Parts: sequence; structure tokens; C-alpha cells
Amino acid sequence: MSSAAIDVVGIGNAIVDVIAHADEAFIAAQGFAKGSMNLIDAPRAQSLYDAMGPAIESSGGSAGNTMAGIASLGGRGAYIGKVRDDELGAVFRHDLRAIGVKFETPAATSGPATARCLIMVTPDGQRTMGTYLGACVELGPDEIEEALIASAQVTYLEGYLFDPPQAQAAFRRAAAVAHAAGRRVALSLSDPFCVGRHRAVFRELVQGEVDILFANEAEICSLYETDDFAAAAKAVRGHVAIAALTRSERGSLVLADGEEHAVAAAPVARVVDTTGAGDLYAAGFLFGLTRGLALPTCGSIGSLCAAEIISHVGARPEVALKGLVEAARLV
Amino acid sequence: MSSAAIDVVGIGNAIVDVIAHADEAFIAAQGFAKGSMNLIDAPRAQSLYDAMGPAIESSGGSAGNTMAGIASLGGRGAYIGKVRDDELGAVFRHDLRAIGVKFETPAATSGPATARCLIMVTPDGQRTMGTYLGACVELGPDEIEEALIASAQVTYLEGYLFDPPQAQAAFRRAAAVAHAAGRRVALSLSDPFCVGRHRAVFRELVQGEVDILFANEAEICSLYETDDFAAAAKAVRGHVAIAALTRSERGSLVLADGEEHAVAAAPVARVVDTTGAGDLYAAGFLFGLTRGLALPTCGSIGSLCAAEIISHVGARPEVALKGLVEAARLV
Repeated sequence: MSSAAIDVVGIGNAIVDVIAHADEAFIAAQGFAKGSMNLIDAPRAQSLYDAMGPAIESSGGSAGNTMAGIASLGGRGAYIGKVRDDELGAVFRHDLRAIGVKFETPAATSGPATARCLIMVTPDGQRTMGTYLGACVELGPDEIEEALIASAQVTYLEGYLFDPPQAQAAFRRAAAVAHAAGRRVALSLSDPFCVGRHRAVFRELVQGEVDILFANEAEICSLYETDDFAAAAKAVRGHVAIAALTRSERGSLVLADGEEHAVAAAPVARVVDTTGAGDLYAAGFLFGLTRGLALPTCGSIGSLCAAEIISHVGARPEVALKGLVEAARLV
Repeated sequence: MSSAAIDVVGIGNAIVDVIAHADEAFIAAQGFAKGSMNLIDAPRAQSLYDAMGPAIESSGGSAGNTMAGIASLGGRGAYIGKVRDDELGAVFRHDLRAIGVKFETPAATSGPATARCLIMVTPDGQRTMGTYLGACVELGPDEIEEALIASAQVTYLEGYLFDPPQAQAAFRRAAAVAHAAGRRVALSLSDPFCVGRHRAVFRELVQGEVDILFANEAEICSLYETDDFAAAAKAVRGHVAIAALTRSERGSLVLADGEEHAVAAAPVARVVDTTGAGDLYAAGFLFGLTRGLALPTCGSIGSLCAAEIISHVGARPEVALKGLVEAARLV
């Protein structure tokens, strides 16, 4: 294995978030379960947007958020994902490059618009999402830059990538290229219902292809079809080299061969918007891992990054995470 | 004068703000004076955007911000301004309508893109702006909905409207229609350098057409080419029925026939982003005026709205201003 030019390359759905405050009655009236991620088509996205309050736009996408976190920590990150050559696509590209993430996937020149995620944030800080995948459906195996994957210590894939039709093939090619180069493959399970839609293939991948797995309690329980977190944690242990299981305010559980670490959550003065909590935990954890830090430290960096992101609206860091981690003496 | 269906109709440059943190060295390197508004062309907007950090997008535009404030206070607002039929144009329209502002000006179907204002916020909360006027140059007298103007108690015009070439004719038509219907015309001077670019015509309008004038210290001093605020305040007194002169943390001075009121600023825990302070002061003041409240109360509502807007990033209210004003027992 040659030395790595990149710490982490993320592959995901390239999405601009459209974020508005909403009350629980609005979410119920729209037919959504609070806290859920719902795939919606273009007409539904329009009618939902028409019904939503004033919004702000902020680049998002699960793996995009994670890569922004890696860069904000001072890591070397790259991203593969598909936007269209429209205004929101330019916004998405700008925001990744401006924070220092390499992002060269060409924009689609025809077809659906850049994806957007309509995010309704309730007064308790929880987010409910309606996602229009738009140009993300154009991401296929041809977009996988093999030299880039081979040059990265970790290839990080978001589970949401299994929703658009061709992306699964892109995922498999990326994993194969990474392993052929002696690199590691990480997966985030993204969402319990996404796991439910693709459970069989996720299980097969977790056992066969994934070295590092990120999941929250609901996701890991969905993967193993159990409501017992301890049982799910036990099951995953034999399937991956490292599992980082997040538990909201109860912190995270990090499992590896012969190791088990309970990591505390970092304190947050007020939870404003939970969007991106898991994405930024993954950023912190992977940053630590690519620096060769001990697993509990990786988890603590993840906790700190998650705490920053839920303290404000939007899923991209508002301050340099590098400074936070240094101030906490974690690096 | 018939009873009014609308409290305030605002006419302005329809702009989406692109907001990023920046340090003073960046602003200097870009050749801007901190705190200034700079008109930039499309290539300059692109190169500035390329150099800026990760950003969020939020609808803006001076009069647009004011109308969002009027609606958030529970007032009946309408807006006239020009976007293109592009993604940012749809964002601008959504955000005004979603807060309850009537906005029917058709989007341009050709020509430049929807305007954007690249806003660099320094750690002290001050904003420096690069504005690409885009589709705003298409606003002309034909866009002035005469029935709408005649139905509004106040027609509110932003001084920035004098920068695009045809908008001055739109301004004059709107003022003529308003006065013919027995309504009042309000003007915000917007920016001291904008005043400098159009001083002669602003002076003529202030003396002949404007009933209610909003200006900060630098703007009113620029209008009368003096560095003595007291002298400028004295000069404007004979020219308009009401002048509301804002003085940042020193509050505002409200002048009218036989009246002079010093109004305190409302307290702010931390100034995060001053963008929109003047726009929201005008919203609060005009809301009070259209409710028939006393001038010092109008000023206090303006102070409260300005305090809300500078306490967060972006120039549109994050909470319902109606609740703030009721809690302060100002209505």
C-alpha cells in the first residue's frame, strides 16, 4: 500500500438543503413522521416547498457534510457526487471546494435539476426531511475516479446512495478499487428506513465489503431486524473491523476486535437543529482514524464535531473544527 | 382617500444574499472597504464567489427584507421587484410569499440571472457587500402595478433602486400614483455611496416627493454633504414630513413637524451580522405608523426589529416579530 494523498474520499448524493422552521402540526399535515427522511418526486417537492415557510439554503448531502467536516478538521478530503449544471449545483460545488474538499465529478448537462432536501426543523431541534434526488440519479460507476479512490486511506460511502438506481454499481466499483489498493471502506447506514429498503444488500455488504461501519441505534437495529440494541451491537461485531454506533445524547459505542469503548457525547448548550449530527460524528471519527489515533479518541472527536453541528441551523460547520479539537486537546 | 387594502408596498432590487464569514484581510485583498456596498459585474461576482468561503443563501434585498419584516409583524405587505425565472428567483419569490407578502411581478424570461449579493461578515459582525444586480436591471415603469400602489397606505422605495438604469422611472411613476391616490411615499437612502452616486436626484426627490425618509448618519450626511449630523438633521427637517435617522447602538432620532424624539436602541446580546439592520428598523417604524401609533413607539418597534435581525446571520427575521413586539408591550 502506497502512502495516501487523500485521507478520505466520500461518495454520496449531492444535495442542497432548504431549511425552514415548522411545527409538528405542519409535519403531520404533510403526512411525514417526525424525524424521518422521505424520498419525494419533483411535483411533491414543489408542493411541499410551496407550503413551507421562509427558508435558507445550505449545501448538504450526508457524505458531503462529512467531507466538509474532514476538511474543517484539517484533513485531506475529496468527494464524488452528481449535481446538474444549474445554480444550486454551482452552490454545492462552491461550498465543498471553498472549505478545501477536492470535487471534480462533472455536472450533468441535461436531465433533472440538482437534488434538494426540504428540511423542516421543529422547535425541539429535530429535523424531518423530504428529499428530491434530482441529478443524483445520474451517478453511476463511470463517475468513480479510480486513481482518486486508490489514493485515499478511506473510501466513505453513505447508505442513501442505494436509493438512486445506478449508484449501487458505483458503490461496488468504489469498494473494489479501494480494496484492490489496500485501502479501507467505510459505510454509514444513513437512515433506518433506507436500511429497510435495502436490507439484504446492506447485510451482504457489511459482511463482505465494509471495514468501518457507522450507524445509530435505529439503523443498526433495522439492519438486524431487532429492537434490542445490545443484540444488534453483538451481531455487527463479527461482521466489520470497526463499528461506531451513535446514541444521540448517550454518546457512542465503538466496537473493534477485542475492544469496546463507550464514548460520551459532548455537551451542547442548546440543540437547535440535529441535521448532520451523524455525518459530523463520522467526520471526526474518520479524521482521528486517519491520524492513527486510538479509537476512544476518534469517538471523542466525533462527539465534538456532532455537538458543533447541532448547535446551529444547517449541516456544515460554522467554525473551524480544527480549532475546537485542538482546544479540547484531542489532537 | 379610500381605506387601504395593503399597509406597505415595497419596491426594490430583488436579491438573494450569499453569506460567508471572512476576515478583514480577505476584504482588503478583494479591494473593498469594510462595511461598503459595491456594485460588481457578472465576471467579478464569479471571481469573488470563487474566492469566498462556504456560504449560505438567504433571500435579501433591502425593501424585500423590510416587507418580510412588515409581514412578520402581522402587517399587510406587498412587493414589486424583478427576478429571473431561475432557481434563485424561485427562492426569492418563495421566501416572500411564505411569510405572507404579496409578490406578483412577473419573472424575466430572458436576460441576466436573478441578482445576488455576496456578503462577507467579519468577526465583529459588520457586513461588506458585492452586489451583482442581474435581472434587477429589467425593472422599469411597466412593472409598477398602479392599483396595488393606490391600495397601499405607504409606498416604500429603497435608494438602491437608483442604480439599475430604468428603475428611477419606475420609482417616479410609483410616487406619482401613490400621491394621486392620497397615499404616502417613503424612501430609504440605503447607502452613503449610493447617495453620492445619485445625490442631485435624491435631494430633489426628498424635497418634492418623499413624505417619510429613512437614513443612517452616514447617508444623511452624504445627502447634505456635511460631516455634521446635527446640521444634516436640521436640513432634512424642512424637506420631509417625517425623518427617521438611525444611529446604530445610539438608537435613532425621529423628526417631524414640531416633534423631535431620541429613541433608544434595543439591547442585543451579541451582534452577529448587521446586514438588514436599517431594513428592519424601517419595517418596525412603518408598521407602527400604519397602525397609527405615536412616533416614539414607531421608533421603538423599529429598534426591536433591528435588534432581532443583527442577532443572527441573514437579513430576514428568524422569529415572528409580532410576538417580540407584543412581549415588549409596544402594541
